[in-house]
Amino acid sequence: MNMYDIIMKKRNGGELTRDEIRFFVAGCCEGSIPDYQTSALLMAIWFRGMTEKETLELTIQMLLSGDTVDLSGIKGLKVDKHSTGGVGDKTTLAIAPIAAACGLKVAKMSGRGLGHTGGTIDKLESIPGFNTSLSRQEFVDIVNTTGLCVAGQTGNLVPADKKLYGLRDVTATVDSLPLIASSIMSKKLAAGADIILLDVKYGSGSFMGDPEHAVRLAQLMVKIGEGAGKRTAALITNMDIPLGYSIGNSLEMVEAVNTLRGQGSQDFRRLVRALSSQLLFMAGKGDRALCEELVEKAISDGSALNKLRDMITAQGGDARYIDEPESFPRAAFIEPVTSPEDGYIQKMDTASIGRISVSLGAGRDVADGKIDHSAGLVLNKKTGDEVKKGDVLAWLHTNRHQALESAKSTFLSSLTFSDAPPEKMPLIYATIDTESEARRVKE
Amino acid sequence: MNMYDIIMKKRNGGELTRDEIRFFVAGCCEGSIPDYQTSALLMAIWFRGMTEKETLELTIQMLLSGDTVDLSGIKGLKVDKHSTGGVGDKTTLAIAPIAAACGLKVAKMSGRGLGHTGGTIDKLESIPGFNTSLSRQEFVDIVNTTGLCVAGQTGNLVPADKKLYGLRDVTATVDSLPLIASSIMSKKLAAGADIILLDVKYGSGSFMGDPEHAVRLAQLMVKIGEGAGKRTAALITNMDIPLGYSIGNSLEMVEAVNTLRGQGSQDFRRLVRALSSQLLFMAGKGDRALCEELVEKAISDGSALNKLRDMITAQGGDARYIDEPESFPRAAFIEPVTSPEDGYIQKMDTASIGRISVSLGAGRDVADGKIDHSAGLVLNKKTGDEVKKGDVLAWLHTNRHQALESAKSTFLSSLTFSDAPPEKMPLIYATIDTESEARRVKE
Repeated sequence: MNMYDIIMKKRNGGELTRDEIRFFVAGCCEGSIPDYQTSALLMAIWFRGMTEKETLELTIQMLLSGDTVDLSGIKGLKVDKHSTGGVGDKTTLAIAPIAAACGLKVAKMSGRGLGHTGGTIDKLESIPGFNTSLSRQEFVDIVNTTGLCVAGQTGNLVPADKKLYGLRDVTATVDSLPLIASSIMSKKLAAGADIILLDVKYGSGSFMGDPEHAVRLAQLMVKIGEGAGKRTAALITNMDIPLGYSIGNSLEMVEAVNTLRGQGSQDFRRLVRALSSQLLFMAGKGDRALCEELVEKAISDGSALNKLRDMITAQGGDARYIDEPESFPRAAFIEPVTSPEDGYIQKMDTASIGRISVSLGAGRDVADGKIDHSAGLVLNKKTGDEVKKGDVLAWLHTNRHQALESAKSTFLSSLTFSDAPPEKMPLIYATIDTESEARRVKE
Repeated sequence: MNMYDIIMKKRNGGELTRDEIRFFVAGCCEGSIPDYQTSALLMAIWFRGMTEKETLELTIQMLLSGDTVDLSGIKGLKVDKHSTGGVGDKTTLAIAPIAAACGLKVAKMSGRGLGHTGGTIDKLESIPGFNTSLSRQEFVDIVNTTGLCVAGQTGNLVPADKKLYGLRDVTATVDSLPLIASSIMSKKLAAGADIILLDVKYGSGSFMGDPEHAVRLAQLMVKIGEGAGKRTAALITNMDIPLGYSIGNSLEMVEAVNTLRGQGSQDFRRLVRALSSQLLFMAGKGDRALCEELVEKAISDGSALNKLRDMITAQGGDARYIDEPESFPRAAFIEPVTSPEDGYIQKMDTASIGRISVSLGAGRDVADGKIDHSAGLVLNKKTGDEVKKGDVLAWLHTNRHQALESAKSTFLSSLTFSDAPPEKMPLIYATIDTESEARRVKE
């Protein structure tokens, strides 16, 4: 077997076998296959695609390239929720406590934000003392005690993805459904959960513009997850508008807590409820109606918020911040952006708004960059809202005075105004759940 | 400008600009663009193709990557004939003397054989003393004195082709018309002739199976040559059958000389006449009928053979071998392959026959390998011939006794027999000459 023949076969539209995929993934990780052959194959895959069978094999071989997280020390059903990335996406902060309050186990290894999308770890670290650098044993112990834990990634998970993604990123082969699906799913499978729920975003704040592309990606990932023996489903959700009103680490922390109190923005509350009840449904907690009730109850009786407090305390954080959000440090400059005209907000360039929050200090442009937990934006108006000239559209929070002027003008150019209200887009475009209620995962 | 955007543009079907092509060719030669990006672009080109404009630009930028041969010291019209490679293809040995006898200048830098196709330099070196390692000045002087010279390549011609071909060869991107055309034409343009005649082969002994592919390649190369200001044409010729009867260095030398004496195999004589008269026509020596007459005359009056003698003498060779072909050393073993059945030879796997001659010692499998000038095959029957069981099909010439058995059986398996004669294929499939007689190159 040699790489030349594998490239030629894919280039000519053939289906690669398990052995060929194993050969190429192992060889590219070990260095026995040079990068110029790997990138030629990636481009051939970009053009020819991969069958579901090939994509599953690629995912499995990538998974086998490194460590997997052993969650066998955790009693109960381990669930994982993964978002493909958005702006203002603090759903994990609300969903994990709800799921834990309903008896599921959430053992989540999460990443830091890079570029225009934030990271759950960064948001949690806005709470003084909160520690995400845990040993594997501490991680397992906290989940067994409190039902949930969010830690930074440890171990050498899916080195093949680091290698392949590094090449895709510089050879214009990122936007290939089988390559995206295998990249995400190999990492999800390595993370060790029994149940995987994917929140696949589409729209201007995500990397998928078109919802039908997002549906195809979700279908493929669900098939891979199910093919690998995990209960897997996906929601396709709108990221044409930032999620909720707050963007930035402590600002999003506060918004998530508000949601767990039954308050907060309507779109974010709806998404949290939909994802949480889907998780409970997948875990066999009941039919869809019952699962929705269980979620409502976990919010209304305060048990979800208690779970969040427990986790924060267990991870060394000061849980008082949950109840006294005014304790979070405030940015030195909090300035409004006002509307230049009367009308409706017809659309928002959500990725641009994400980048503004980075420019204000809330994110990082380079890996390992410092972030300012107090920085970000709080929107006052979103797509569909009617505005009058001079109305506050958003508040910019920053300690970088010099960043304000550019942030204001960029914010305004990220909005499109119109005379009439825009057509309303559904928040949840589709649910991809191939399993009927009959099939449940048993503890 | 950056390579990522160039890859993305080509991947998405865009047309690269001159600046983009210059950036990529220069960067890949200098090493500022990594090979994994170059190979991704080559694969994108394989899928998307290139426009004629892009292919011309690529050719020019490749040409500019290195030296060009300065033939300005040679008086008269310099002509070049290039074959895309075949088995038993000794046409240069006959055409160059004919062209020189008709007043044209043939200043040819030629390569050595590699793989199943032989090289003109190797064939000439079967004449004792013949020297192809000439300085630029010696080369020019010999052409001015005798009208022709065939020397080994000197200088750093088209390093971009070495770089790109090296990558194409290991990433399954060799068989792309624009990449083949730019590779060939950049080297032809670097070689400095005024008139370029391409002999584009198709069939089992060449890298193009289908004549229509060969036509498309030829059309593209002719457009590039004309676009670069050179009078350029092409003949599309059959390589489904070895050319002539002899394959191997001194064996082909003798066959070429026989052809210059008006003897030899009919197909080879026809091809030599067609290519030679096309060259004269392109050089403005007259209309097609007159050019054919001039070629006949150069053969019948012995002037072409005299030119070959002059060149051999000028390059230090012993011209006696031309008149006493029995002087060439003979291989130790000359063994027949006989027909296992009655019938007709329906087809021959010509590339396989080329590889047999390599196995007998006539070629090299690796660059810089040694060759045996006496080794090769002399065919006795070719496609279309009727044979009886026991008839000699070919004589194998070798000093490697151990190679004979395998060569015999491989030879037989390279032939297909049938009960009825096969359909006759034209030797010359098409002529690509975009210029009317009105446009001539003037000295």
